[in-house]
Amino acid sequence: MENRIYTYDCTLRDGEQGEGISLSLEDKLRIVQRLDALGVDFVEGGFPASNPKDIEFFKRVRELPLEHARIAAFGSTCRKGVAAAEDAGLADLLASGAPVVTIVGKTWDAQVTRALQTSLDENLRMISDSVSYLKQRGRHVVFDAEHFFDGYKANADYALACVRAAAEAGADSVDLCETNGGALPHEVAEAVGAVAAALPGQQIGIHCHDDSGCAVASTLTAVHSGATQVQGTVNGIGERVGNTDLLTVIANLELKMECTCIGRENLRQLTDVAKFVAETCNISVPAHHPYTGSSAFAHKGGLHASAIARFPEAYEHTRPEYVGNVTRMLVSELAGKASLVAKARSLGIDLANYPETTQQILEEIKQREAQGYSYEVADGSLAILLLRHLGQYKPHFTLESFRVIVDDREDTGALAKDAMSEATIKIHVGDQRFVATGEGAGPVEALDVALRMAIGEFFPQVDQMELVDFKVRILDENVGTGAITRVLITTSDGVMRWGTVGVSENIIEASWNALVDSIEYGLARRELALR
Amino acid sequence: MENRIYTYDCTLRDGEQGEGISLSLEDKLRIVQRLDALGVDFVEGGFPASNPKDIEFFKRVRELPLEHARIAAFGSTCRKGVAAAEDAGLADLLASGAPVVTIVGKTWDAQVTRALQTSLDENLRMISDSVSYLKQRGRHVVFDAEHFFDGYKANADYALACVRAAAEAGADSVDLCETNGGALPHEVAEAVGAVAAALPGQQIGIHCHDDSGCAVASTLTAVHSGATQVQGTVNGIGERVGNTDLLTVIANLELKMECTCIGRENLRQLTDVAKFVAETCNISVPAHHPYTGSSAFAHKGGLHASAIARFPEAYEHTRPEYVGNVTRMLVSELAGKASLVAKARSLGIDLANYPETTQQILEEIKQREAQGYSYEVADGSLAILLLRHLGQYKPHFTLESFRVIVDDREDTGALAKDAMSEATIKIHVGDQRFVATGEGAGPVEALDVALRMAIGEFFPQVDQMELVDFKVRILDENVGTGAITRVLITTSDGVMRWGTVGVSENIIEASWNALVDSIEYGLARRELALR
Repeated sequence: MENRIYTYDCTLRDGEQGEGISLSLEDKLRIVQRLDALGVDFVEGGFPASNPKDIEFFKRVRELPLEHARIAAFGSTCRKGVAAAEDAGLADLLASGAPVVTIVGKTWDAQVTRALQTSLDENLRMISDSVSYLKQRGRHVVFDAEHFFDGYKANADYALACVRAAAEAGADSVDLCETNGGALPHEVAEAVGAVAAALPGQQIGIHCHDDSGCAVASTLTAVHSGATQVQGTVNGIGERVGNTDLLTVIANLELKMECTCIGRENLRQLTDVAKFVAETCNISVPAHHPYTGSSAFAHKGGLHASAIARFPEAYEHTRPEYVGNVTRMLVSELAGKASLVAKARSLGIDLANYPETTQQILEEIKQREAQGYSYEVADGSLAILLLRHLGQYKPHFTLESFRVIVDDREDTGALAKDAMSEATIKIHVGDQRFVATGEGAGPVEALDVALRMAIGEFFPQVDQMELVDFKVRILDENVGTGAITRVLITTSDGVMRWGTVGVSENIIEASWNALVDSIEYGLARRELALR
Repeated sequence: MENRIYTYDCTLRDGEQGEGISLSLEDKLRIVQRLDALGVDFVEGGFPASNPKDIEFFKRVRELPLEHARIAAFGSTCRKGVAAAEDAGLADLLASGAPVVTIVGKTWDAQVTRALQTSLDENLRMISDSVSYLKQRGRHVVFDAEHFFDGYKANADYALACVRAAAEAGADSVDLCETNGGALPHEVAEAVGAVAAALPGQQIGIHCHDDSGCAVASTLTAVHSGATQVQGTVNGIGERVGNTDLLTVIANLELKMECTCIGRENLRQLTDVAKFVAETCNISVPAHHPYTGSSAFAHKGGLHASAIARFPEAYEHTRPEYVGNVTRMLVSELAGKASLVAKARSLGIDLANYPETTQQILEEIKQREAQGYSYEVADGSLAILLLRHLGQYKPHFTLESFRVIVDDREDTGALAKDAMSEATIKIHVGDQRFVATGEGAGPVEALDVALRMAIGEFFPQVDQMELVDFKVRILDENVGTGAITRVLITTSDGVMRWGTVGVSENIIEASWNALVDSIEYGLARRELALR
């Protein structure tokens, strides 16, 4: 078993195939940066020929200052009867400029003859020719052996011939794909072992789906059998039941199999990364998710903190802090003073000399998180909370009241744009009172317009602030329309972006709270020279 | 490897330890009956000394006409320094009248000395004495070896001595528990193999938790190594990240390992049982759950129905009907007529004789998806669209107008509940006009209340429909508050659930559209006898 295991993330391609998952270009770029900071080796960006969004992605991603991660473009081998050098798909992969190219090819004899409708020899030619061509063009080439485990079961000799063709043509890594998710770990172990024996010295990777509920275990067993590259997605998102959860695999490899993937220091980011990607996908990390779920280290009823402290191994299979998680008692991410002080410092706020205030802030955060607030992507709201406790913050304006009216006449067909919602706000700046009415396509836009009208005269800098992202999340969804709503807003002043959060049973109220924080933080940031 | 594998369900005890899970006495009895019908061998009922609900449970469960399942009472070995015959806990287990008694005992040396604070020999005496005593009283005895895998790692000889003590005292099954969930499958395999070698002829069971994401695989590997009894909970509910999902284990054993647990015929109940238990626990089966989740056999990403029909093994690791699930085509990829016709048929709507209409419907779906609609989880809205094109649908009501007012006075602090939003709707049913005003915590709740008031007199069945889920997604988030909003609503009438979708620049309008579809589909479904 090798000690250094390479991590290959498929969140942006396979993950996006998951039901209900949809990522904007900006989302994808943000995820790349977060995975780079985590220390992931390869990030698959997408299929550069498939749509304009992916083409633009490969252009934009080249401008990112990545420290570690290498970007992979994904595609297929050349088509049957076409030389690699003439293949349009391979040309697109090269044109993407990605340093890594991953090509999928068939290894299951029945797939070649029935789906691809060509000869077994021609398929070998397609693999070999495509890999050689991409290698000649200086790319790091990963060969994804589609349906390898079905292929190995049906015709082991041919499946091995396919991966040998890729290896002999120079593939840097031959990644065996359990495409339909059906193989059990003992079957994966056998097939990976056979490839390792057939191709000594060749890097082997593993790519699983969780249809049998064994993706993590199959990936680990492949490593035992000689694989040194693991593919997966953050939180295991993906089509059907999903892919291997890359983060759970990394935690098991680092903590239990004496392997190095991202390093123990970076491992502490795991829970944060799980949440970051989930929020970006507008889903949650399942509470019961291994390692990173909020219940992963939650202890029920009778179990006291003192009992855990006395004999932690009996209650926790690993230390939650190793993966950046916490026991349930400590509700918040920012549960410890030290981490709150560190977080504040990253925002340009010094808490070091205020231990009592820090304690009060921790209490308030805990209380607010219980109400549904989440500060992970709401640095702006967190900064305002900190400054308020430190007495360094005075609101720039105070609300007297607002009223929002949404009118609709269904029988006219479509809505008349820009005039459907109207918001009137009454606001005080110093000892002056302003009343302003704004219109918008929706109620939040109307409020935003009205607020800017009301305070724009005093604070012209609000004109430079723009809402660039607006996310709504219903918490405790099972109670229907009466549930708590969390709104996350991202605002940009052209230089920096910041997130703010609002929570209420009323979606308009929640939006308003996030909106106020977004403007207040934007104004305070420059005055106080915050980061 | 044995062919007949016994199934032991812990849903009522370990499962109920899961966060947010709480089962009434009636719930527990219903679950017992459902598991009995499924063909589960053992159902653990609870700890008969722990609380009045469990004591009553054992009384009531004796009156159930069970066909197959045997009920187990759960407790501990006798206390240190106390003879089994004098132990109050064992007396309670016998008094429960349960034919099976499961007692947990320690096998990890450090647990014996540090937690139990007794000698290693006394622990062996407690195990042996308790098992013998229960056997003399005619019970089927299962010995749960707590922390066995940690114990085996720390002191293999002692851990084996503990299970040998239970076996020699006559335990019918020695079940090895991976209590803290930390062991990986290869470690489980090794330890189970050692027990099988040490205790030839002894039935061995396996009980895992999913903290490393490997519970299913560890359970299967234990069977490979000689275990013939598998413990788990329905849907894997349980403390921290949960227990082994018994249903996934059963499916893998039956379909992929040539074992018999409940039989292939009963296997068809699997998806139903998963839903039944989830609903009883007031949770959902996660969409991405292996075998039983609603996405487990869902296909998108350019995959056509015709391709699946031609070569199903390439896309589905098993036949969904084997486990009572269905293939689901995600509508967004309904590129071809064939798949739309298949989808319509699954909703009880026959398109086969309407090729032109089908083409028109495809056009409209394409157009709507470009606007932001998504029919993947909105079968209700899709059905209405189909029926409208077929001329089989007439709206039950038409909107004249609505107005929503949201008022807030920030300076009073919190919102006054239930009175912050007000919706007035003017609506026509046939030639009658209704005006109704509803209040709610938020604008959508107010609209929902008003709509039900307005049409409830004509359609009293709306009282049985309940909004159970409400999701909001901002599409193209980067344009801020002016972006398109997609609202997905799930409605239940107690028997069935359906999803509907609304899209608009205005979040209130989008919610209204989804709301109208949810009510319209609920009314149409019964009238047209749709599935």
